[in-house]
Amino acid sequence: METFKRKIKYYECDRMGVTHHSNYIRIMEETRIDALDQMGYGFEKMEAEGIVSPVVSVSVDYKRTTTFQDLIEVELKVLEMSALKLKFGYTMKRDGKVVCTASSTHCFIGADGRPIIIENTHPQLYAALKELM
Amino acid sequence: METFKRKIKYYECDRMGVTHHSNYIRIMEETRIDALDQMGYGFEKMEAEGIVSPVVSVSVDYKRTTTFQDLIEVELKVLEMSALKLKFGYTMKRDGKVVCTASSTHCFIGADGRPIIIENTHPQLYAALKELM
Amino acid sequence: METFKRKIKYYECDRMGVTHHSNYIRIMEETRIDALDQMGYGFEKMEAEGIVSPVVSVSVDYKRTTTFQDLIEVELKVLEMSALKLKFGYTMKRDGKVVCTASSTHCFIGADGRPIIIENTHPQLYAALKELM
Amino acid sequence: METFKRKIKYYECDRMGVTHHSNYIRIMEETRIDALDQMGYGFEKMEAEGIVSPVVSVSVDYKRTTTFQDLIEVELKVLEMSALKLKFGYTMKRDGKVVCTASSTHCFIGADGRPIIIENTHPQLYAALKELM
Repeated sequence: METFKRKIKYYECDRMGVTHHSNYIRIMEETRIDALDQMGYGFEKMEAEGIVSPVVSVSVDYKRTTTFQDLIEVELKVLEMSALKLKFGYTMKRDGKVVCTASSTHCFIGADGRPIIIENTHPQLYAALKELM
Repeated sequence: METFKRKIKYYECDRMGVTHHSNYIRIMEETRIDALDQMGYGFEKMEAEGIVSPVVSVSVDYKRTTTFQDLIEVELKVLEMSALKLKFGYTMKRDGKVVCTASSTHCFIGADGRPIIIENTHPQLYAALKELM
Repeated sequence: METFKRKIKYYECDRMGVTHHSNYIRIMEETRIDALDQMGYGFEKMEAEGIVSPVVSVSVDYKRTTTFQDLIEVELKVLEMSALKLKFGYTMKRDGKVVCTASSTHCFIGADGRPIIIENTHPQLYAALKELM
Repeated sequence: METFKRKIKYYECDRMGVTHHSNYIRIMEETRIDALDQMGYGFEKMEAEGIVSPVVSVSVDYKRTTTFQDLIEVELKVLEMSALKLKFGYTMKRDGKVVCTASSTHCFIGADGRPIIIENTHPQLYAALKELM
Protein backbone atom coordinates (compact mmCIF):
# COMPACT_ATOMS: atom_id res chain seq x y z
CA MET A 1 0.00 0.00 0.00
CA GLU A 2 1.47 3.31 -1.07
CA THR A 3 1.16 6.30 1.26
CA PHE A 4 -1.42 8.81 0.06
CA LYS A 5 0.05 12.20 -0.77
CA ARG A 6 -1.56 15.46 -1.68
CA LYS A 7 -0.87 19.17 -1.52
CA ILE A 8 -2.95 21.69 0.37
CA LYS A 9 -4.91 23.90 -1.99
CA TYR A 10 -5.15 27.67 -1.78
CA TYR A 11 -8.90 27.59 -1.18
CA GLU A 12 -8.45 25.16 1.71
CA CYS A 13 -6.71 27.78 3.84
CA ASP A 14 -8.57 30.17 6.07
CA ARG A 15 -8.20 33.71 7.36
CA MET A 16 -5.47 32.58 9.75
CA GLY A 17 -3.47 31.41 6.73
CA VAL A 18 -3.71 27.76 7.75
CA THR A 19 -5.61 24.76 6.40
CA HIS A 20 -9.17 24.99 7.71
CA HIS A 21 -9.67 22.13 10.17
CA SER A 22 -12.71 20.76 8.31
CA ASN A 23 -10.55 19.91 5.32
CA TYR A 24 -8.68 17.15 7.16
CA ILE A 25 -11.98 15.24 7.22
CA ARG A 26 -11.98 15.43 3.44
CA ILE A 27 -8.35 14.34 3.20
CA MET A 28 -9.30 11.32 5.32
CA GLU A 29 -11.98 10.42 2.78
CA GLU A 30 -9.55 10.85 -0.10
CA THR A 31 -7.11 8.56 1.68
CA ARG A 32 -9.70 5.79 2.18
CA ILE A 33 -10.77 6.03 -1.45
CA ASP A 34 -7.17 5.88 -2.61
CA ALA A 35 -6.56 2.80 -0.46
CA LEU A 36 -9.63 1.03 -1.87
CA ASP A 37 -8.43 1.90 -5.37
CA GLN A 38 -5.03 0.40 -4.62
CA MET A 39 -6.76 -2.76 -3.33
CA GLY A 40 -8.49 -3.01 -6.70
CA TYR A 41 -11.71 -2.32 -4.87
CA GLY A 42 -12.60 1.13 -6.09
CA PHE A 43 -15.55 3.07 -4.88
CA GLU A 44 -17.28 2.63 -8.24
CA LYS A 45 -17.07 -1.15 -7.87
CA MET A 46 -18.61 -0.88 -4.41
CA GLU A 47 -21.31 1.40 -5.71
CA ALA A 48 -21.95 -0.91 -8.66
CA GLU A 49 -22.49 -3.76 -6.20
CA GLY A 50 -24.80 -1.55 -4.18
CA ILE A 51 -22.56 -1.51 -1.11
CA VAL A 52 -22.22 1.72 0.77
CA SER A 53 -19.95 2.33 3.68
CA PRO A 54 -21.29 5.27 5.68
CA VAL A 55 -19.13 7.16 8.13
CA VAL A 56 -20.40 6.38 11.62
CA SER A 57 -17.94 8.59 13.50
CA VAL A 58 -14.79 10.65 13.04
CA SER A 59 -12.24 11.98 15.44
CA VAL A 60 -9.29 14.27 14.73
CA ASP A 61 -6.42 15.54 16.88
CA TYR A 62 -4.71 18.55 15.38
CA LYS A 63 -1.01 18.70 16.25
CA ARG A 64 0.50 21.28 13.91
CA THR A 65 -0.97 23.70 11.39
CA THR A 66 -0.34 23.25 7.69
CA THR A 67 -0.76 25.68 4.86
CA PHE A 68 -1.04 26.22 1.12
CA GLN A 69 1.34 24.06 -0.94
CA ASP A 70 2.30 21.85 2.00
CA LEU A 71 2.61 18.23 0.94
CA ILE A 72 0.63 16.00 3.29
CA GLU A 73 1.45 12.30 3.53
CA VAL A 74 -1.15 10.08 5.11
CA GLU A 75 -0.44 6.69 6.64
CA LEU A 76 -3.58 4.59 6.80
CA LYS A 77 -4.14 1.67 9.14
CA VAL A 78 -7.09 -0.51 10.02
CA LEU A 79 -7.39 -0.16 13.79
CA GLU A 80 -10.38 -2.44 14.33
CA MET A 81 -12.41 -4.79 12.22
CA SER A 82 -15.42 -6.70 13.39
CA ALA A 83 -18.39 -8.29 11.68
CA LEU A 84 -20.16 -4.97 11.40
CA LYS A 85 -17.61 -2.26 12.01
CA LEU A 86 -14.43 -0.99 10.41
CA LYS A 87 -12.19 1.59 12.04
CA PHE A 88 -9.42 3.38 10.17
CA GLY A 89 -6.53 5.24 11.76
CA TYR A 90 -4.75 8.08 9.97
CA THR A 91 -1.42 9.74 10.64
CA MET A 92 -0.82 12.84 8.54
CA LYS A 93 2.70 14.17 8.19
CA ARG A 94 4.46 17.08 6.56
CA ASP A 95 8.23 16.82 6.18
CA GLY A 96 8.12 13.78 8.43
CA LYS A 97 6.45 15.62 11.29
CA VAL A 98 2.99 14.60 12.45
CA VAL A 99 0.42 17.31 11.74
CA CYS A 100 -2.62 15.35 12.80
CA THR A 101 -3.85 11.94 13.86
CA ALA A 102 -7.40 10.83 13.20
CA SER A 103 -9.78 7.92 13.02
CA SER A 104 -13.04 7.12 11.28
CA THR A 105 -15.49 4.31 11.88
CA HIS A 106 -17.66 2.79 9.19
CA CYS A 107 -20.27 0.12 8.69
CA PHE A 108 -21.27 -1.64 5.50
CA ILE A 109 -24.76 -1.51 4.05
CA GLY A 110 -25.87 -3.78 1.22
CA ALA A 111 -28.10 -3.12 -1.78
CA ASP A 112 -31.20 -3.83 0.33
CA GLY A 113 -30.29 -1.12 2.83
CA ARG A 114 -29.34 -3.58 5.55
CA PRO A 115 -25.97 -4.10 7.24
CA ILE A 116 -23.79 -6.69 5.59
CA ILE A 117 -20.92 -8.74 7.01
CA ILE A 118 -18.27 -8.20 4.37
CA GLU A 119 -16.21 -11.13 5.64
CA ASN A 120 -19.00 -13.28 4.15
CA THR A 121 -20.22 -11.18 1.27
CA HIS A 122 -16.89 -9.75 0.06
CA PRO A 123 -14.08 -11.96 1.37
CA GLN A 124 -11.51 -10.42 -0.99
CA LEU A 125 -12.14 -6.90 0.27
CA TYR A 126 -12.15 -8.21 3.82
CA ALA A 127 -8.75 -9.85 3.32
CA ALA A 128 -7.28 -6.71 1.76
CA LEU A 129 -8.48 -4.60 4.68
CA LYS A 130 -7.09 -7.17 7.15
CA GLU A 131 -3.66 -6.58 5.67
CA LEU A 132 -3.83 -2.94 6.73
CA MET A 133 -4.08 -3.90 10.38
CA MET B 1 -40.07 38.63 -3.69
CA GLU B 2 -37.91 39.27 -0.65
CA THR B 3 -34.22 39.96 -1.13
CA PHE B 4 -32.02 37.02 -0.14
CA LYS B 5 -29.71 37.77 2.76
CA ARG B 6 -26.93 35.78 4.32
CA LYS B 7 -23.76 36.30 6.27
CA ILE B 8 -20.31 35.26 5.13
CA LYS B 9 -19.03 32.29 7.12
CA TYR B 10 -15.60 32.02 8.67
CA TYR B 11 -14.66 29.01 6.52
CA GLU B 12 -15.60 30.90 3.34
CA CYS B 13 -12.72 33.34 3.76
CA ASP B 14 -9.28 32.66 2.39
CA ARG B 15 -5.67 33.45 3.25
CA MET B 16 -6.15 37.04 2.10
CA GLY B 17 -8.88 37.39 4.73
CA VAL B 18 -11.59 37.82 2.08
CA THR B 19 -14.44 35.66 0.85
CA HIS B 20 -12.97 33.17 -1.61
CA HIS B 21 -14.29 34.04 -5.06
CA SER B 22 -15.71 30.54 -5.64
CA ASN B 23 -18.21 31.04 -2.84
CA TYR B 24 -20.17 33.68 -4.72
CA ILE B 25 -21.18 30.92 -7.15
CA ARG B 26 -22.67 29.08 -4.16
CA ILE B 27 -24.46 32.20 -2.92
CA MET B 28 -25.98 32.51 -6.40
CA GLU B 29 -27.36 28.98 -6.07
CA GLU B 30 -28.72 29.73 -2.60
CA THR B 31 -30.43 32.83 -4.00
CA ARG B 32 -32.12 30.90 -6.84
CA ILE B 33 -33.31 28.22 -4.45
CA ASP B 34 -34.66 30.82 -2.03
CA ALA B 35 -36.53 32.53 -4.89
CA LEU B 36 -38.10 29.24 -6.02
CA ASP B 37 -39.12 28.58 -2.40
CA GLN B 38 -40.74 31.99 -2.22
CA MET B 39 -42.61 31.21 -5.46
CA GLY B 40 -43.99 28.12 -3.78
CA TYR B 41 -41.94 26.14 -6.24
CA GLY B 42 -39.32 24.59 -4.05
CA PHE B 43 -36.50 22.52 -5.36
CA GLU B 44 -38.01 19.41 -3.78
CA LYS B 45 -41.21 19.93 -5.77
CA MET B 46 -39.16 20.23 -8.95
CA GLU B 47 -37.16 17.15 -8.05
CA ALA B 48 -40.37 15.27 -7.20
CA GLU B 49 -41.69 16.09 -10.67
CA GLY B 50 -38.41 14.95 -12.18
CA ILE B 51 -37.45 18.37 -13.51
CA VAL B 52 -33.85 19.43 -13.24
CA SER B 53 -32.49 22.80 -14.16
CA PRO B 54 -28.77 22.45 -14.83
CA VAL B 55 -26.45 25.42 -14.85
CA VAL B 56 -25.36 26.03 -18.43
CA SER B 57 -23.07 28.96 -17.71
CA VAL B 58 -22.10 31.41 -15.01
CA SER B 59 -20.36 34.75 -15.07
CA VAL B 60 -19.24 36.89 -12.14
CA ASP B 61 -17.74 40.39 -11.91
CA TYR B 62 -16.10 41.03 -8.56
CA LYS B 63 -16.32 44.70 -7.53
CA ARG B 64 -15.39 44.78 -3.83
CA THR B 65 -14.08 42.17 -1.42
CA THR B 66 -16.24 40.96 1.46
CA THR B 67 -15.27 39.13 4.59
CA PHE B 68 -16.38 37.08 7.58
CA GLN B 69 -19.64 38.28 9.15
CA ASP B 70 -20.49 40.61 6.26
CA LEU B 71 -24.19 40.54 5.48
CA ILE B 72 -24.71 40.04 1.76
CA GLU B 73 -28.02 41.03 0.16
CA VAL B 74 -28.75 39.62 -3.26
CA GLU B 75 -31.19 41.11 -5.75
CA LEU B 76 -32.34 38.53 -8.25
CA LYS B 77 -33.76 39.28 -11.67
CA VAL B 78 -34.70 37.21 -14.67
CA LEU B 79 -32.68 38.74 -17.51
CA GLU B 80 -33.85 36.48 -20.31
CA MET B 81 -36.44 33.81 -20.74
CA SER B 82 -37.05 31.83 -23.86
CA ALA B 83 -38.58 28.47 -24.64
CA LEU B 84 -35.44 26.65 -23.62
CA LYS B 85 -33.31 29.06 -21.65
CA LEU B 86 -33.53 31.00 -18.43
CA LYS B 87 -30.98 33.63 -17.45
CA PHE B 88 -30.79 35.07 -13.94
CA GLY B 89 -29.01 38.29 -13.00
CA TYR B 90 -27.65 38.86 -9.48
CA THR B 91 -26.57 42.04 -7.76
CA MET B 92 -24.88 41.42 -4.41
CA LYS B 93 -24.57 44.28 -1.96
CA ARG B 94 -23.08 44.93 1.46
CA ASP B 95 -24.22 48.06 3.27
CA GLY B 96 -25.88 49.18 0.07
CA LYS B 97 -22.66 48.99 -1.97
CA VAL B 98 -22.37 46.55 -4.86
CA VAL B 99 -19.80 43.84 -4.15
CA CYS B 100 -20.45 41.76 -7.24
CA THR B 101 -22.75 41.35 -10.20
CA ALA B 102 -23.31 37.99 -11.79
CA SER B 103 -25.47 35.93 -14.09
CA SER B 104 -26.31 32.27 -14.59
CA THR B 105 -28.01 30.53 -17.48
CA HIS B 106 -30.12 27.40 -17.11
CA CYS B 107 -32.15 25.00 -19.15
CA PHE B 108 -34.93 22.68 -18.01
CA ILE B 109 -34.76 18.93 -18.39
CA GLY B 110 -37.77 16.70 -17.80
CA ALA B 111 -38.06 13.28 -16.20
CA ASP B 112 -37.16 11.60 -19.50
CA GLY B 113 -33.87 13.48 -19.71
CA ARG B 114 -35.04 15.72 -22.54
CA PRO B 115 -35.40 19.50 -22.59
CA ILE B 116 -38.83 20.75 -21.63
CA ILE B 117 -40.54 24.03 -22.42
CA ILE B 118 -41.77 25.08 -18.99
CA GLU B 119 -44.17 27.61 -20.47
CA ASN B 120 -46.17 24.56 -21.58
CA THR B 121 -45.36 22.00 -18.90
CA HIS B 122 -45.27 24.29 -15.83
CA PRO B 123 -47.21 27.47 -16.65
CA GLN B 124 -47.39 28.54 -13.00
CA LEU B 125 -43.62 28.41 -12.54
CA TYR B 126 -43.21 30.17 -15.87
CA ALA B 127 -45.53 32.98 -14.79
CA ALA B 128 -43.75 33.38 -11.45
CA LEU B 129 -40.38 33.63 -13.20
CA LYS B 130 -41.82 36.13 -15.69
CA GLU B 131 -42.64 38.42 -12.79
CA LEU B 132 -38.94 38.61 -11.91
CA MET B 133 -38.11 40.18 -15.27
CA MET C 1 -28.61 31.44 24.71
CA GLU C 2 -30.73 30.79 21.63
CA THR C 3 -30.31 27.51 19.80
CA PHE C 4 -28.43 27.87 16.53
CA LYS C 5 -30.51 26.96 13.48
CA ARG C 6 -29.62 26.63 9.87
CA LYS C 7 -30.75 24.82 6.75
CA ILE C 8 -28.68 22.37 4.80
CA LYS C 9 -27.59 23.81 1.47
CA TYR C 10 -27.85 22.07 -1.87
CA TYR C 11 -24.08 22.10 -2.38
CA GLU C 12 -23.53 20.46 1.02
CA CYS C 13 -25.14 17.21 -0.12
CA ASP C 14 -23.19 14.46 -1.79
CA ARG C 15 -23.76 11.75 -4.37
CA MET C 16 -25.73 9.71 -1.85
CA GLY C 17 -28.14 12.64 -1.56
CA VAL C 18 -27.18 13.29 2.06
CA THR C 19 -25.23 16.04 3.81
CA HIS C 20 -21.54 15.26 3.38
CA HIS C 21 -20.13 14.34 6.78
CA SER C 22 -17.40 17.00 6.62
CA ASN C 23 -20.02 19.75 6.68
CA TYR C 24 -21.04 19.00 10.26
CA ILE C 25 -17.59 20.22 11.31
CA ARG C 26 -18.42 23.52 9.64
CA ILE C 27 -21.83 23.70 11.31
CA MET C 28 -20.03 23.21 14.64
CA GLU C 29 -17.87 26.23 13.89
CA GLU C 30 -20.90 28.30 12.89
CA THR C 31 -22.56 27.32 16.17
CA ARG C 32 -19.56 28.41 18.27
CA ILE C 33 -19.33 31.71 16.42
CA ASP C 34 -23.06 32.32 16.87
CA ALA C 35 -22.74 31.60 20.61
CA LEU C 36 -19.84 34.04 20.98
CA ASP C 37 -21.88 36.65 19.10
CA GLN C 38 -24.79 36.11 21.48
CA MET C 39 -22.39 36.54 24.41
CA GLY C 40 -21.43 39.91 22.98
CA TYR C 41 -18.01 38.43 22.35
CA GLY C 42 -17.90 38.23 18.60
CA PHE C 43 -15.05 36.73 16.71
CA GLU C 44 -14.04 40.18 15.43
CA LYS C 45 -13.65 41.39 19.00
CA MET C 46 -11.45 38.41 19.77
CA GLU C 47 -9.43 38.97 16.63
CA ALA C 48 -9.14 42.68 17.43
CA GLU C 49 -7.69 41.76 20.82
CA GLY C 50 -5.33 39.33 19.14
CA ILE C 51 -6.82 36.26 20.77
CA VAL C 52 -7.18 33.16 18.68
CA SER C 53 -8.84 29.98 19.75
CA PRO C 54 -7.53 27.13 17.60
CA VAL C 55 -9.34 23.82 17.33
CA VAL C 56 -7.26 21.20 19.11
CA SER C 57 -9.52 18.24 18.40
CA VAL C 58 -12.96 17.36 17.06
CA SER C 59 -15.09 14.27 17.36
CA VAL C 60 -18.42 13.53 15.67
CA ASP C 61 -20.91 10.67 15.99
CA TYR C 62 -23.31 10.50 13.09
CA LYS C 63 -26.72 9.15 14.09
CA ARG C 64 -29.05 9.95 11.19
CA THR C 65 -28.49 11.37 7.73
CA THR C 66 -29.84 14.79 6.81
CA THR C 67 -30.37 16.35 3.45
CA PHE C 68 -30.99 19.51 1.43
CA GLN C 69 -33.44 21.93 3.07
CA ASP C 70 -33.42 20.10 6.42
CA LEU C 71 -33.44 22.55 9.31
CA ILE C 72 -30.71 21.66 11.79
CA GLU C 73 -30.95 22.90 15.38
CA VAL C 74 -27.79 22.78 17.43
CA GLU C 75 -27.66 22.75 21.21
CA LEU C 76 -24.30 23.93 22.48
CA LYS C 77 -22.84 23.16 25.88
CA VAL C 78 -19.51 23.70 27.52
CA LEU C 79 -18.44 20.23 28.63
CA GLU C 80 -15.12 21.12 30.22
CA MET C 81 -13.30 24.28 31.09
CA SER C 82 -9.88 24.49 32.61
CA ALA C 83 -7.14 27.09 32.73
CA LEU C 84 -5.95 26.15 29.28
CA LYS C 85 -8.68 24.12 27.64
CA LEU C 86 -12.27 24.59 26.56
CA LYS C 87 -14.43 21.72 25.35
CA PHE C 88 -17.77 22.27 23.62
CA GLY C 89 -20.48 19.64 23.20
CA TYR C 90 -22.98 19.78 20.33
CA THR C 91 -26.28 18.02 19.84
CA MET C 92 -27.74 18.49 16.37
CA LYS C 93 -31.40 17.76 15.81
CA ARG C 94 -33.88 17.74 12.93
CA ASP C 95 -37.56 17.67 13.83
CA GLY C 96 -36.55 16.96 17.42
CA LYS C 97 -34.55 13.85 16.51
CA VAL C 98 -30.82 13.73 17.13
CA VAL C 99 -28.87 13.57 13.87
CA CYS C 100 -25.42 13.87 15.39
CA THR C 101 -23.54 14.56 18.59
CA ALA C 102 -20.12 16.09 18.59
CA SER C 103 -17.43 17.82 20.58
CA SER C 104 -14.54 20.17 19.93
CA THR C 105 -11.64 21.16 22.14
CA HIS C 106 -9.92 24.53 21.98
CA CYS C 107 -7.14 26.45 23.61
CA PHE C 108 -6.63 30.20 23.74
CA ILE C 109 -3.59 31.94 22.32
CA GLY C 110 -2.82 35.59 23.00
CA ALA C 111 -1.40 38.29 20.78
CA ASP C 112 2.14 37.15 21.58
CA GLY C 113 1.45 33.63 20.32
CA ARG C 114 1.46 32.11 23.79
CA PRO C 115 -1.37 30.36 25.63
CA ILE C 116 -3.48 32.62 27.78
CA ILE C 117 -5.65 31.82 30.77
CA ILE C 118 -8.87 33.60 29.85
CA GLU C 119 -10.17 33.41 33.40
CA ASN C 120 -7.51 36.04 34.14
CA THR C 121 -7.24 37.90 30.86
CA HIS C 122 -10.92 37.90 29.83
CA PRO C 123 -13.05 37.29 32.93
CA GLN C 124 -16.27 38.38 31.19
CA LEU C 125 -15.86 35.86 28.38
CA TYR C 126 -14.90 33.23 30.94
CA ALA C 127 -18.06 33.90 32.94
CA ALA C 128 -20.26 33.76 29.84
CA LEU C 129 -18.76 30.40 28.83
CA LYS C 130 -19.20 29.11 32.39
CA GLU C 131 -22.93 29.71 32.03
CA LEU C 132 -23.04 27.24 29.13
CA MET C 133 -21.85 24.41 31.37
CA MET D 1 3.98 23.97 -19.97
CA GLU D 2 2.46 20.68 -18.88
CA THR D 3 -1.30 20.30 -18.88
CA PHE D 4 -2.78 20.36 -15.38
CA LYS D 5 -4.50 17.12 -14.42
CA ARG D 6 -6.59 16.21 -11.43
CA LYS D 7 -9.31 13.78 -10.45
CA ILE D 8 -12.75 14.78 -9.24
CA LYS D 9 -13.15 14.07 -5.52
CA TYR D 10 -16.11 12.32 -3.93
CA TYR D 11 -17.04 15.37 -1.89
CA GLU D 12 -17.07 17.55 -5.01
CA CYS D 13 -20.12 15.75 -6.41
CA ASP D 14 -23.64 16.79 -5.61
CA ARG D 15 -27.06 15.17 -5.19
CA MET D 16 -27.33 14.74 -8.96
CA GLY D 17 -24.17 12.64 -8.84
CA VAL D 18 -22.18 15.18 -10.83
CA THR D 19 -19.39 17.62 -10.00
CA HIS D 20 -20.98 20.67 -8.40
CA HIS D 21 -20.58 23.58 -10.82
CA SER D 22 -18.85 25.78 -8.22
CA ASN D 23 -15.89 23.39 -8.10
CA TYR D 24 -14.77 24.24 -11.63
CA ILE D 25 -13.93 27.71 -10.34
CA ARG D 26 -11.60 26.04 -7.85
CA ILE D 27 -10.04 23.85 -10.53
CA MET D 28 -9.35 27.03 -12.51
CA GLU D 29 -7.47 28.43 -9.52
CA GLU D 30 -5.50 25.20 -9.12
CA THR D 31 -4.58 25.38 -12.80
CA ARG D 32 -3.29 28.96 -12.56
CA ILE D 33 -1.26 28.12 -9.47
CA ASP D 34 0.21 25.05 -11.15
CA ALA D 35 1.16 27.13 -14.19
CA LEU D 36 2.89 29.76 -12.05
CA ASP D 37 4.74 26.95 -10.27
CA GLN D 38 5.91 25.55 -13.60
CA MET D 39 7.10 29.04 -14.58
CA GLY D 40 9.23 29.05 -11.45
CA TYR D 41 6.97 31.81 -10.20
CA GLY D 42 5.10 30.15 -7.40
CA PHE D 43 2.40 31.80 -5.41
CA GLU D 44 4.67 31.92 -2.34
CA LYS D 45 7.23 33.90 -4.29
CA MET D 46 4.54 36.35 -5.34
CA GLU D 47 3.25 36.59 -1.80
CA ALA D 48 6.79 37.07 -0.50
CA GLU D 49 7.19 39.99 -2.89
CA GLY D 50 3.87 41.37 -1.73
CA ILE D 51 2.18 40.98 -5.11
CA VAL D 52 -1.37 39.79 -5.17
CA SER D 53 -3.37 38.99 -8.24
CA PRO D 54 -7.06 39.24 -7.40
CA VAL D 55 -9.71 37.67 -9.56
CA VAL D 56 -11.63 40.47 -11.27
CA SER D 57 -14.09 38.26 -13.13
CA VAL D 58 -14.80 34.65 -14.05
CA SER D 59 -16.95 33.06 -16.69
CA VAL D 60 -17.69 29.37 -17.21
CA ASP D 61 -19.58 27.47 -19.93
CA TYR D 62 -20.54 23.99 -18.84
CA LYS D 63 -20.61 21.54 -21.76
CA ARG D 64 -20.74 18.07 -20.20
CA THR D 65 -21.13 16.83 -16.64
CA THR D 66 -18.27 15.07 -14.90
CA THR D 67 -18.28 12.91 -11.83
CA PHE D 68 -16.27 11.28 -9.06
CA GLN D 69 -12.93 9.81 -10.22
CA ASP D 70 -13.08 11.51 -13.63
CA LEU D 71 -9.67 12.77 -14.66
CA ILE D 72 -9.88 16.38 -15.77
CA GLU D 73 -7.16 17.84 -18.00
CA VAL D 74 -6.98 21.59 -18.23
CA GLU D 75 -5.36 23.51 -21.07
CA LEU D 76 -4.44 27.01 -19.99
CA LYS D 77 -3.89 29.95 -22.30
CA VAL D 78 -3.34 33.64 -21.84
CA LEU D 79 -6.11 35.26 -23.88
CA GLU D 80 -5.26 38.89 -23.20
CA MET D 81 -2.48 40.76 -21.54
CA SER D 82 -2.31 44.48 -21.10
CA ALA D 83 -0.54 46.83 -18.73
CA LEU D 84 -3.09 46.25 -16.02
CA LYS D 85 -5.06 43.17 -16.96
CA LEU D 86 -4.43 39.48 -17.50
CA LYS D 87 -7.04 37.13 -18.90
CA PHE D 88 -6.66 33.36 -18.79
CA GLY D 89 -8.64 30.91 -20.91
CA TYR D 90 -9.27 27.32 -19.76
CA THR D 91 -10.39 24.28 -21.68
CA MET D 92 -11.21 21.33 -19.46
CA LYS D 93 -11.39 17.86 -21.00
CA ARG D 94 -12.19 14.33 -19.91
CA ASP D 95 -11.13 11.55 -22.25
CA GLY D 96 -10.37 14.18 -24.86
CA LYS D 97 -13.89 15.61 -24.79
CA VAL D 98 -14.46 19.20 -23.69
CA VAL D 99 -16.42 19.35 -20.43
CA CYS D 100 -16.15 23.08 -19.93
CA THR D 101 -14.52 26.24 -21.19
CA ALA D 102 -13.85 29.16 -18.94
CA SER D 103 -11.97 32.38 -18.46
CA SER D 104 -10.77 34.51 -15.57
CA THR D 105 -9.50 38.08 -15.50
CA HIS D 106 -6.94 39.36 -13.01
CA CYS D 107 -5.08 42.49 -12.11
CA PHE D 108 -1.83 42.84 -10.18
CA ILE D 109 -1.53 44.76 -6.94
CA GLY D 110 1.82 45.59 -5.36
CA ALA D 111 2.92 45.65 -1.74
CA ASP D 112 1.58 49.19 -1.35
CA GLY D 113 -1.92 48.11 -2.39
CA ARG D 114 -1.73 49.86 -5.74
CA PRO D 115 -1.91 48.35 -9.23
CA ILE D 116 1.43 47.43 -10.71
CA ILE D 117 2.47 46.98 -14.32
CA ILE D 118 4.25 43.64 -14.17
CA GLU D 119 5.91 44.22 -17.55
CA ASN D 120 8.01 46.78 -15.67
CA THR D 121 8.16 45.36 -12.17
CA HIS D 122 8.42 41.64 -12.99
CA PRO D 123 9.65 41.29 -16.59
CA GLN D 124 10.48 37.59 -16.14
CA LEU D 125 6.95 36.70 -15.04
CA TYR D 126 5.59 38.88 -17.84
CA ALA D 127 7.67 37.04 -20.41
CA ALA D 128 6.62 33.65 -19.09
CA LEU D 129 2.95 34.62 -19.27
CA LYS D 130 3.45 35.99 -22.80
CA GLU D 131 4.55 32.53 -23.88
CA LEU D 132 1.15 31.16 -22.92
CA MET D 133 -0.59 33.38 -25.46
